[in-house]
Amino acid sequence: MSTASVIVIGNEILSGRTRDENLAWLAVELNKIGVQLREARVIPDIEETIIKTVNELRSQYDFVFTSGGIGPTHDDITSETIAKAFDVAYICNGEARAILANHYGEENLNEARLKMAHLPEGASLIENPVSAAPGFMIGNVVVMAGVPIIMQAMFANIKNQIKGGKPVLSETLSIFLTEGIIAKGITEIQNNFPDVEIGSYPFIKNGRLGTSLVSRNIEQARIDEVVAKIKSFVSELGGEIEVIA
Amino acid sequence: MSTASVIVIGNEILSGRTRDENLAWLAVELNKIGVQLREARVIPDIEETIIKTVNELRSQYDFVFTSGGIGPTHDDITSETIAKAFDVAYICNGEARAILANHYGEENLNEARLKMAHLPEGASLIENPVSAAPGFMIGNVVVMAGVPIIMQAMFANIKNQIKGGKPVLSETLSIFLTEGIIAKGITEIQNNFPDVEIGSYPFIKNGRLGTSLVSRNIEQARIDEVVAKIKSFVSELGGEIEVIA
Repeated sequence: MSTASVIVIGNEILSGRTRDENLAWLAVELNKIGVQLREARVIPDIEETIIKTVNELRSQYDFVFTSGGIGPTHDDITSETIAKAFDVAYICNGEARAILANHYGEENLNEARLKMAHLPEGASLIENPVSAAPGFMIGNVVVMAGVPIIMQAMFANIKNQIKGGKPVLSETLSIFLTEGIIAKGITEIQNNFPDVEIGSYPFIKNGRLGTSLVSRNIEQARIDEVVAKIKSFVSELGGEIEVIA
Repeated sequence: MSTASVIVIGNEILSGRTRDENLAWLAVELNKIGVQLREARVIPDIEETIIKTVNELRSQYDFVFTSGGIGPTHDDITSETIAKAFDVAYICNGEARAILANHYGEENLNEARLKMAHLPEGASLIENPVSAAPGFMIGNVVVMAGVPIIMQAMFANIKNQIKGGKPVLSETLSIFLTEGIIAKGITEIQNNFPDVEIGSYPFIKNGRLGTSLVSRNIEQARIDEVVAKIKSFVSELGGEIEVIA
């Protein structure tokens, strides 16, 4: 099992102007490739904060994925800041420059656009099929754009280089009993199956209160055992069950 | 200007099962009451992680808002853990118990439901008009439910006790020029108005590439000055402008 954290970089998320979509998307996609997302942070475009956060998280998790701040404008400081976090030079990457020259035309490669070819020394490029300017990977840190469509395309182009484990499987039982009624019995099942993570989430559907019980493990057989126990317990209480695979 | 951080607590967000809505909502609402959201974290239901995160952030920011983990089930560990973070007892709060007894009936107040009356000693309650079980505030930490409708109702009931400053105002100019074209000029304007935060965000609308330029300050007059400078600069370049107040 590999572990990861996500850093969403951008004042616009913290000010409420932009609703982040990248965290939820990455949570799902990382799980598919057997990488467990352990923590996410949303931080502003402040050099000191970015350096501190990247260095703290890259030492704690197998991979760190960042989104945001790699464009051509004054508030795009992620690439230069990551170079400082790794204590390497921030240089014009020849391969990235060639991609941009091909995309914009050499004559249109102004200072702002050239900024997008400046990367930490030693970074390897992540292709951007949407708008050319590449993302990059350095050490265990994957640096991607903030625009969701571009971030997703970059992730598709890097994910084969991310060494994950077995994906965590899950099965959800949605039952029309409230958490307060089932908590004691579910706690007993959880205690008997400590390796299977049982999450309990209240919901309201068509005006009826209920609870979704999500069993998670890398082995389907263990999930099946827990689901059978939960079903049997709920039946005893006379609860109605909806299964969501 | 007061500062805040938000901690979203819950494995279900990190696994991708549930898409968090609380961060984006709080970002907007905090700004309205003059509290600047400086950082947000999404962390799992792990005692050690919650304690470390709460203690780190409550010493850094004026307020910390948490969502998630205050229900009756085994995976709801936020309240007990916050007591540990503050090094105070985790006790049955008489006022909270009375609210729950009134809601469920004394005869239905089982162990799981009583758990929701257990809070850190010294916490003051936050009323929950949706499902009775209260949130609470201790020190500068506001502890709320994870279910968005309940979290929002709790926030409405606590926000008068949050001392904010002047709200940050903003004005957005959406222009049909790409970031690479305008970056240099916008950087100059930003350098001349260092107190006004200018954010630059690319967009695609009806197949046309453009940039949203967001000017933010607590004084409308300063925003007006910057917006005028940007309009004049964009006109010189022949760009088309859409104003979004």
